[in-house]
Amino acid sequence: MKNAKVTYIQGLQFVGVASSGHAIVMDSDPGVGGNNTGPKPMELLLMGIGGCSGTDIISILRKKQQDFTGLEINVKGEAAEDYPKKFTNINLEFIVKGRNISEDAVKRSIDLSMNKYCSVKATLEGSSKISFSYKIIQE
Amino acid sequence: MKNAKVTYIQGLQFVGVASSGHAIVMDSDPGVGGNNTGPKPMELLLMGIGGCSGTDIISILRKKQQDFTGLEINVKGEAAEDYPKKFTNINLEFIVKGRNISEDAVKRSIDLSMNKYCSVKATLEGSSKISFSYKIIQE
Repeated sequence: MKNAKVTYIQGLQFVGVASSGHAIVMDSDPGVGGNNTGPKPMELLLMGIGGCSGTDIISILRKKQQDFTGLEINVKGEAAEDYPKKFTNINLEFIVKGRNISEDAVKRSIDLSMNKYCSVKATLEGSSKISFSYKIIQE
Repeated sequence: MKNAKVTYIQGLQFVGVASSGHAIVMDSDPGVGGNNTGPKPMELLLMGIGGCSGTDIISILRKKQQDFTGLEINVKGEAAEDYPKKFTNINLEFIVKGRNISEDAVKRSIDLSMNKYCSVKATLEGSSKISFSYKIIQE
Protein backbone atom coordinates (compact mmCIF):
# COMPACT_ATOMS: atom_id res chain seq x y z
CA MET A 1 0.00 0.00 0.00
CA LYS A 2 1.34 3.43 -0.97
CA ASN A 3 -0.13 6.66 0.41
CA ALA A 4 -0.07 10.34 -0.32
CA LYS A 5 -1.54 13.28 1.53
CA VAL A 6 -2.37 16.30 -0.59
CA THR A 7 -3.09 19.61 1.16
CA TYR A 8 -4.59 22.74 -0.39
CA ILE A 9 -2.40 25.80 0.21
CA GLN A 10 -3.70 28.82 -1.76
CA GLY A 11 -4.85 29.79 -5.27
CA LEU A 12 -4.72 26.37 -6.96
CA GLN A 13 -1.52 25.36 -5.21
CA PHE A 14 -1.28 22.03 -3.38
CA VAL A 15 1.48 20.24 -1.53
CA GLY A 16 1.60 16.46 -1.81
CA VAL A 17 3.53 14.36 0.69
CA ALA A 18 4.19 10.75 -0.29
CA SER A 19 4.68 7.76 2.01
CA SER A 20 8.44 8.01 1.39
CA GLY A 21 8.27 11.36 3.22
CA HIS A 22 9.01 13.56 0.22
CA ALA A 23 6.89 16.56 -0.70
CA ILE A 24 6.19 18.30 -3.97
CA VAL A 25 4.27 21.44 -4.89
CA MET A 26 1.61 21.23 -7.63
CA ASP A 27 -0.09 24.18 -9.29
CA SER A 28 -2.06 25.26 -12.37
CA ASP A 29 -1.65 27.88 -15.07
CA PRO A 30 -2.59 31.52 -14.35
CA GLY A 31 -5.25 31.22 -17.11
CA VAL A 32 -7.29 28.87 -14.92
CA GLY A 33 -6.61 30.55 -11.59
CA GLY A 34 -3.24 29.07 -10.65
CA ASN A 35 0.14 30.71 -10.13
CA ASN A 36 2.37 28.19 -11.91
CA THR A 37 4.49 27.51 -8.82
CA GLY A 38 4.91 23.80 -9.51
CA PRO A 39 4.24 21.03 -12.01
CA LYS A 40 0.65 20.30 -13.01
CA PRO A 41 -0.86 17.04 -11.73
CA MET A 42 -0.99 15.57 -15.27
CA GLU A 43 2.71 16.34 -15.75
CA LEU A 44 3.50 14.10 -12.78
CA LEU A 45 2.25 11.11 -14.77
CA LEU A 46 4.77 11.83 -17.55
CA MET A 47 7.65 12.40 -15.13
CA GLY A 48 6.57 9.23 -13.31
CA ILE A 49 6.66 6.98 -16.37
CA GLY A 50 10.07 8.42 -17.30
CA GLY A 51 11.48 7.87 -13.80
CA CYS A 52 10.01 4.40 -13.50
CA SER A 53 11.28 3.10 -16.84
CA GLY A 54 14.62 4.87 -16.30
CA THR A 55 15.06 3.08 -12.97
CA ASP A 56 14.50 -0.30 -14.64
CA ILE A 57 16.84 0.47 -17.53
CA ILE A 58 19.68 1.73 -15.31
CA SER A 59 19.36 -1.33 -13.04
CA ILE A 60 19.42 -3.72 -15.99
CA LEU A 61 22.27 -1.98 -17.86
CA ARG A 62 24.26 -2.10 -14.63
CA LYS A 63 23.65 -5.86 -14.29
CA LYS A 64 24.72 -6.26 -17.90
CA GLN A 65 27.93 -4.39 -16.99
CA GLN A 66 27.35 -1.70 -19.57
CA ASP A 67 29.61 1.35 -19.29
CA PHE A 68 26.83 3.93 -19.55
CA THR A 69 27.47 7.60 -18.81
CA GLY A 70 23.96 8.94 -19.16
CA LEU A 71 20.29 8.26 -19.78
CA GLU A 72 17.69 10.77 -20.87
CA ILE A 73 14.04 10.02 -21.43
CA ASN A 74 11.89 12.40 -23.46
CA VAL A 75 8.24 11.79 -22.69
CA LYS A 76 5.38 13.18 -24.75
CA GLY A 77 1.76 12.84 -23.70
CA GLU A 78 -1.21 13.46 -25.94
CA ALA A 79 -4.50 14.08 -24.19
CA ALA A 80 -8.06 13.81 -25.51
CA GLU A 81 -9.59 17.15 -26.52
CA ASP A 82 -12.80 16.58 -24.60
CA TYR A 83 -13.21 16.37 -20.83
CA PRO A 84 -11.87 14.63 -18.82
CA LYS A 85 -8.95 15.08 -21.26
CA LYS A 86 -7.20 11.87 -20.25
CA PHE A 87 -3.92 10.82 -21.83
CA THR A 88 -4.57 8.72 -24.91
CA ASN A 89 -1.00 8.37 -26.21
CA ILE A 90 2.30 8.49 -24.40
CA ASN A 91 5.61 8.27 -26.25
CA LEU A 92 9.00 7.67 -24.65
CA GLU A 93 12.34 8.29 -26.33
CA PHE A 94 15.24 6.68 -24.46
CA ILE A 95 18.69 8.14 -25.11
CA VAL A 96 21.49 6.01 -23.69
CA LYS A 97 25.03 7.42 -23.63
CA GLY A 98 28.20 5.49 -22.88
CA ARG A 99 31.22 3.61 -24.09
CA ASN A 100 30.91 0.43 -26.16
CA ILE A 101 27.24 0.21 -25.30
CA SER A 102 25.67 -2.99 -26.65
CA GLU A 103 22.55 -2.30 -28.66
CA ASP A 104 21.21 -5.71 -27.63
CA ALA A 105 21.60 -4.81 -23.95
CA VAL A 106 19.76 -1.52 -24.49
CA LYS A 107 16.93 -3.18 -26.42
CA ARG A 108 16.61 -5.90 -23.81
CA SER A 109 16.56 -3.44 -20.88
CA ILE A 110 13.83 -1.36 -22.56
CA ASP A 111 11.84 -4.46 -23.43
CA LEU A 112 12.02 -5.76 -19.83
CA SER A 113 10.93 -2.38 -18.46
CA MET A 114 8.10 -1.84 -20.92
CA ASN A 115 6.78 -5.39 -20.92
CA LYS A 116 7.59 -6.74 -17.47
CA TYR A 117 8.67 -4.37 -14.70
CA CYS A 118 7.52 -0.77 -15.06
CA SER A 119 4.56 -0.27 -12.69
CA VAL A 120 3.78 3.23 -13.92
CA LYS A 121 3.67 2.08 -17.54
CA ALA A 122 1.40 -0.83 -16.57
CA THR A 123 -0.91 1.55 -14.69
CA LEU A 124 -1.09 4.14 -17.48
CA GLU A 125 -1.53 1.69 -20.35
CA GLY A 126 -5.07 0.97 -19.21
CA SER A 127 -6.00 4.32 -20.81
CA SER A 128 -3.07 5.29 -23.00
CA LYS A 129 -1.31 3.70 -25.90
CA ILE A 130 2.37 3.65 -24.90
CA SER A 131 5.00 3.78 -27.65
CA PHE A 132 8.77 4.11 -27.44
CA SER A 133 12.01 4.41 -29.36
CA TYR A 134 15.67 4.55 -28.41
CA LYS A 135 18.91 6.14 -29.47
CA ILE A 136 22.44 5.17 -28.42
CA ILE A 137 25.19 7.76 -28.28
CA GLN A 138 28.63 6.15 -28.10
CA GLU A 139 31.15 8.42 -26.41
CA MET B 1 0.67 17.93 -25.92
CA LYS B 2 2.48 17.81 -22.57
CA ASN B 3 6.16 16.89 -22.31
CA ALA B 4 8.65 15.87 -19.70
CA LYS B 5 12.36 15.31 -19.85
CA VAL B 6 13.76 12.89 -17.32
CA THR B 7 17.53 12.77 -16.78
CA TYR B 8 19.51 10.15 -14.87
CA ILE B 9 21.70 11.71 -12.19
CA GLN B 10 23.30 8.98 -9.99
CA GLY B 11 22.37 5.84 -8.04
CA LEU B 12 18.71 5.52 -9.03
CA GLN B 13 18.10 9.25 -8.82
CA PHE B 14 16.44 11.09 -11.70
CA VAL B 15 15.38 14.68 -12.28
CA GLY B 16 12.23 15.26 -14.29
CA VAL B 17 11.47 18.62 -15.89
CA ALA B 18 7.91 19.18 -17.08
CA SER B 19 6.71 21.44 -19.90
CA SER B 20 5.64 23.99 -17.26
CA GLY B 21 9.36 24.36 -16.45
CA HIS B 22 9.20 22.80 -12.99
CA ALA B 23 11.59 20.07 -11.88
CA ILE B 24 11.30 17.26 -9.36
CA VAL B 25 13.74 14.69 -8.05
CA MET B 26 12.70 11.01 -8.09
CA ASP B 27 14.52 8.18 -6.34
CA SER B 28 14.12 4.63 -5.03
CA ASP B 29 14.58 2.90 -1.69
CA PRO B 30 18.08 1.95 -0.51
CA GLY B 31 16.96 -1.71 -0.59
CA VAL B 32 16.85 -1.64 -4.40
CA GLY B 33 19.90 0.59 -4.93
CA GLY B 34 18.40 4.05 -4.44
CA ASN B 35 19.14 6.74 -1.88
CA ASN B 36 15.57 7.88 -1.07
CA THR B 37 16.27 11.50 -2.07
CA GLY B 38 12.84 12.07 -3.62
CA PRO B 39 9.42 10.53 -4.20
CA LYS B 40 9.16 7.24 -6.06
CA PRO B 41 7.70 7.36 -9.57
CA MET B 42 4.58 5.41 -8.47
CA GLU B 43 4.00 7.92 -5.66
CA LEU B 44 3.71 10.68 -8.26
CA LEU B 45 0.54 9.04 -9.57
CA LEU B 46 -1.08 9.24 -6.12
CA MET B 47 -0.01 12.85 -5.57
CA GLY B 48 -1.21 13.62 -9.10
CA ILE B 49 -4.73 12.27 -8.60
CA GLY B 50 -4.96 14.16 -5.30
CA GLY B 51 -3.79 17.44 -6.84
CA CYS B 52 -5.98 17.04 -9.92
CA SER B 53 -9.20 16.30 -8.02
CA GLY B 54 -8.35 18.95 -5.43
CA THR B 55 -7.97 21.57 -8.17
CA ASP B 56 -11.44 20.72 -9.51
CA ILE B 57 -13.04 20.73 -6.07
CA ILE B 58 -11.51 24.08 -5.00
CA SER B 59 -12.56 25.68 -8.32
CA ILE B 60 -16.14 24.40 -7.98
CA LEU B 61 -16.52 25.24 -4.27
CA ARG B 62 -15.30 28.75 -5.09
CA LYS B 63 -17.91 29.10 -7.86
CA LYS B 64 -20.53 27.89 -5.42
CA GLN B 65 -19.35 30.63 -3.01
CA GLN B 66 -18.54 28.20 -0.26
CA ASP B 67 -16.52 29.63 2.65
CA PHE B 68 -13.94 26.84 2.78
CA THR B 69 -10.79 27.14 4.87
CA GLY B 70 -9.05 23.93 3.90
CA LEU B 71 -9.03 20.80 1.79
CA GLU B 72 -7.01 17.66 2.42
CA ILE B 73 -7.00 14.58 0.27
CA ASN B 74 -5.73 11.28 1.64
CA VAL B 75 -4.87 8.96 -1.21
CA LYS B 76 -4.21 5.24 -0.82
CA GLY B 77 -3.00 3.08 -3.65
CA GLU B 78 -3.03 -0.71 -3.67
CA ALA B 79 -0.73 -2.37 -6.17
CA ALA B 80 -0.78 -5.89 -7.57
CA GLU B 81 1.66 -8.28 -5.87
CA ASP B 82 3.09 -9.58 -9.13
CA TYR B 83 5.14 -7.66 -11.65
CA PRO B 84 4.56 -5.12 -13.08
CA LYS B 85 2.80 -4.32 -9.76
CA LYS B 86 0.42 -1.79 -11.26
CA PHE B 87 -2.11 0.04 -9.13
CA THR B 88 -5.35 -1.93 -8.96
CA ASN B 89 -7.25 0.16 -6.41
CA ILE B 90 -6.96 3.83 -5.51
CA ASN B 91 -9.00 5.38 -2.72
CA LEU B 92 -9.41 9.10 -2.09
CA GLU B 93 -10.71 10.65 1.12
CA PHE B 94 -11.64 14.32 0.72
CA ILE B 95 -11.72 16.40 3.91
CA VAL B 96 -13.30 19.82 3.37
CA LYS B 97 -13.04 22.40 6.16
CA GLY B 98 -14.92 25.67 6.37
CA ARG B 99 -17.85 27.67 7.69
CA ASN B 100 -21.45 26.74 6.82
CA ILE B 101 -20.22 24.39 4.12
CA SER B 102 -23.11 22.92 2.13
CA GLU B 103 -22.92 19.14 1.93
CA ASP B 104 -24.68 19.29 -1.43
CA ALA B 105 -22.00 21.61 -2.78
CA VAL B 106 -19.26 19.27 -1.57
CA LYS B 107 -20.94 16.18 -3.04
CA ARG B 108 -21.54 17.95 -6.33
CA SER B 109 -17.94 19.20 -6.59
CA ILE B 110 -16.57 15.72 -5.93
CA ASP B 111 -19.02 14.17 -8.38
CA LEU B 112 -18.04 16.65 -11.12
CA SER B 113 -14.34 16.02 -10.53
CA MET B 114 -14.59 12.23 -10.38
CA ASN B 115 -17.06 11.79 -13.22
CA LYS B 116 -16.38 14.70 -15.57
CA TYR B 117 -13.24 16.79 -15.15
CA CYS B 118 -10.31 15.05 -13.46
CA SER B 119 -7.84 14.05 -16.19
CA VAL B 120 -5.58 12.09 -13.86
CA LYS B 121 -8.50 10.06 -12.49
CA ALA B 122 -9.68 9.34 -16.05
CA THR B 123 -6.17 8.23 -17.04
CA LEU B 124 -5.66 5.98 -14.00
CA GLU B 125 -9.08 4.37 -14.02
CA GLY B 126 -8.14 2.38 -17.11
CA SER B 127 -6.17 0.12 -14.73
CA SER B 128 -7.37 0.97 -11.23
CA LYS B 129 -10.70 0.92 -9.51
CA ILE B 130 -11.08 4.42 -8.04
CA SER B 131 -13.18 4.83 -4.89
CA PHE B 132 -13.74 7.89 -2.71
CA SER B 133 -15.39 9.27 0.40
CA TYR B 134 -15.65 12.70 1.99
CA LYS B 135 -15.81 14.36 5.37
CA ILE B 136 -16.85 17.93 6.15
CA ILE B 137 -15.42 19.73 9.16
CA GLN B 138 -17.47 22.82 10.02
CA GLU B 139 -15.36 25.42 11.79
